[in-house]
Amino acid sequence: MTSRIEWLRATLVASSLALFMINPVLADSSVSADTAPAEFKVTDFLLDNGMEVVVIPDHRAPIVTHMVWYKIGSADEPPGKSGIAHFFEHLMFKATAHHKAGEFDRAVSDIGGSNNAFTSYDYTAFHETVAPSALELMMSFEADRMRNLILTDDVIKTERDVILEERRSRIDNNPQAVLDEEVDATLWQNQPYRIPVIGWMQEMEQLNRTDAIAFYNKYYRPNNAVLIVAGDVEPETVKALAEKTYGKVARGPDLPPRVRPVEPEQNTKRTVTLSDPRVSVPSFSTQWVVPSYHTAKAGEAEALDLLAEILGDGNRSRLYQALIVKQGIASNAGAYFQGTMLDDTNFTVYAAPRGDARLADVEAAVDAEVARIASDGVTPDELEKAKDRYVRSMIFARDKQDSMANIYGSTLATGGTVQDVQQWPDRIRKVTTDEVKAVAARYLVLSRATTGYLLPQQQAGN
Amino acid sequence: MTSRIEWLRATLVASSLALFMINPVLADSSVSADTAPAEFKVTDFLLDNGMEVVVIPDHRAPIVTHMVWYKIGSADEPPGKSGIAHFFEHLMFKATAHHKAGEFDRAVSDIGGSNNAFTSYDYTAFHETVAPSALELMMSFEADRMRNLILTDDVIKTERDVILEERRSRIDNNPQAVLDEEVDATLWQNQPYRIPVIGWMQEMEQLNRTDAIAFYNKYYRPNNAVLIVAGDVEPETVKALAEKTYGKVARGPDLPPRVRPVEPEQNTKRTVTLSDPRVSVPSFSTQWVVPSYHTAKAGEAEALDLLAEILGDGNRSRLYQALIVKQGIASNAGAYFQGTMLDDTNFTVYAAPRGDARLADVEAAVDAEVARIASDGVTPDELEKAKDRYVRSMIFARDKQDSMANIYGSTLATGGTVQDVQQWPDRIRKVTTDEVKAVAARYLVLSRATTGYLLPQQQAGN
Repeated sequence: MTSRIEWLRATLVASSLALFMINPVLADSSVSADTAPAEFKVTDFLLDNGMEVVVIPDHRAPIVTHMVWYKIGSADEPPGKSGIAHFFEHLMFKATAHHKAGEFDRAVSDIGGSNNAFTSYDYTAFHETVAPSALELMMSFEADRMRNLILTDDVIKTERDVILEERRSRIDNNPQAVLDEEVDATLWQNQPYRIPVIGWMQEMEQLNRTDAIAFYNKYYRPNNAVLIVAGDVEPETVKALAEKTYGKVARGPDLPPRVRPVEPEQNTKRTVTLSDPRVSVPSFSTQWVVPSYHTAKAGEAEALDLLAEILGDGNRSRLYQALIVKQGIASNAGAYFQGTMLDDTNFTVYAAPRGDARLADVEAAVDAEVARIASDGVTPDELEKAKDRYVRSMIFARDKQDSMANIYGSTLATGGTVQDVQQWPDRIRKVTTDEVKAVAARYLVLSRATTGYLLPQQQAGN
Repeated sequence: MTSRIEWLRATLVASSLALFMINPVLADSSVSADTAPAEFKVTDFLLDNGMEVVVIPDHRAPIVTHMVWYKIGSADEPPGKSGIAHFFEHLMFKATAHHKAGEFDRAVSDIGGSNNAFTSYDYTAFHETVAPSALELMMSFEADRMRNLILTDDVIKTERDVILEERRSRIDNNPQAVLDEEVDATLWQNQPYRIPVIGWMQEMEQLNRTDAIAFYNKYYRPNNAVLIVAGDVEPETVKALAEKTYGKVARGPDLPPRVRPVEPEQNTKRTVTLSDPRVSVPSFSTQWVVPSYHTAKAGEAEALDLLAEILGDGNRSRLYQALIVKQGIASNAGAYFQGTMLDDTNFTVYAAPRGDARLADVEAAVDAEVARIASDGVTPDELEKAKDRYVRSMIFARDKQDSMANIYGSTLATGGTVQDVQQWPDRIRKVTTDEVKAVAARYLVLSRATTGYLLPQQQAGN
């Protein structure tokens, strides 16, 4: 749930891109026709085996982005098996009944394409960007590894060593990442977002072939997957190719609803402090549990998005203006809301001191802005400008084909629909100042927050 | 994991009674014969259906304590079903195929006996104290409700309302209990001791008949139970009666080993603060994750028990002497270690200020004692006196028949054996000053601890 863990970067880009979306609804209401051409008509259909397909035409350049999103993430893992979702993302690059390990990667690079994969709390996704003529080949490789992986003890052992090393280098060697893990596990006391995506070391070490096969057979099925194709291709073509490739994969058993343990109400103020000699500049972040787009009452998540924008997104935000421009005590300060989650999510404010400023003073200044927005709300002018900034972001987002794919993929993998994506700008436009004030007052309560402190060693007693 | 939650009192007595045990080994080595008569010979055997039976003769008075311990506690609950172990303890007092609800209770009180039950993280126990002539009747009632409960929707709904009200009155109306819950969930980030025994409200509300029946069928089986009979009765009699009653209950399916998610290493200092207008005197407690008798390397748990004794058990302890006698700044101060747990457990220090003393000064004084014992260890004289205090406690414990039953029951329900109990005093005697220093230095690290603060409302910003 923190933005600093590297292997989540792709995912978090997807999350923040919930802000950077363009579609015909928006175009019709406020953006001039030339910024939102009619070609952005999204098509959505199901294959007979239950696989959902979304096609986002974009004919400006001869490329396509091909993504498969599985509705399985670290928050779905069985107790004691943390890390298996991410482990499986790795295993998907191994040999199948039809292709040697590495063959898919080489096929992509041979044609000048790019590919990757990422795992988050709620989903695991695999993607390639290639010329349209290679789309069928991509589909054929992806459809193959959906069911035909060869999981030997040797493959498991080798790749487990890789993820263990990944944990050592990305988490255990990084004080910020170590802190973030324990902040997450302190913020979340029941909901599984407390468990790190990469897994707890002692559990990763025990992951085995039996676990992996059970996981594969349960979750890597067409009826648990969403295919997103964005780019220079027609829906009819995608449909025909998808039926020819993915359509040949048998539907798996129905999965139960993704109902996870729910977070109890937080009654306390919590802190987590890490002092480490590798830290030179102290910093802090404060988090609250808030509803996501999937769990919120109508309008609340939209209000939280605008609240984050006004309070701490960019250099027009209150935190930036107060701490960096006016008081000059912070080197950075901001806020963010991760709305695209299946369960309740987090709203975060953060800052770090500049020069000789004390961390305690910086935190007090952030708290003052939080308290002010919770008690007094936002002005109509601020809210209008925040909405306008969104619109501009959406226009810029047009240039990123993979952004469109990410928006649809992350939304559909967390309980949303194509319609939710399309109607989102209208819902943002309807948010009132009262609604923003209401979510700020309800959720940003300083005595019920979780704060993480990263301190240089000498400030251990801070 | 906190000592203040009322419905756990019986259990925690059982835990702390690991200190108050008497047996022939001890008697032979250091206690005069008249304090440990030969009659304390414990008998242990299995029924054909797998039920373990322990008989502790005690012929001083014509009473028997009859306990059935099931190896199922809140830490064994499925995700999202918190509270079901405790809920089931309640359901065990409902109607069976052979007895109406309340009939068992009335039978006990009609003969002047007493009975009760308790649930903890690792076990659920039911006990009666009656005249020896009523032992068969007790066994017959207990054996009946082990398998013959009638769980209707109506029974479930009615009793669920009872546990919900129990949660409201014992937790939600009690600031200390609210704080303790969130401290536990902050200390434990992966191991299930983070989940309250009574359950999270939102999950208790959803417990249903299907859950209850699955739980009953899985865990309420003779091969998952330990029968302890202490008192004026011979092993042969107990065996005959047990075969006639419990022996008729069919063995259940084998249960998998009780392997639970393990706690990752703690790298941070964590705090949890609750400010509440109902609090008049502030207080704090600091906890560390330490091994239990079941998870520790040989000798470590014994050293932790003596460390707790020296640091903070009673008015000879360092904390009492420093904070209450010398400095006069605390109204109470102490330490405890809960050794009788299946998984890693907690070591806790606590204190509250006296008069105008500041909580921060009291905490600093406790921290200083912790730092001193971790860096300098304990003296041979202190250690000998601590061991002697144990021996005296053991002699006093002789007068409590139910203490003996609790010691054996809690040990056997958390992976220990009758021999473990019997050899325990010898193991305590072998602990060296180096071993006490080693566990203090290894575990009582102030920068990797979890501290809870209970504050009056006006000190919210403390």
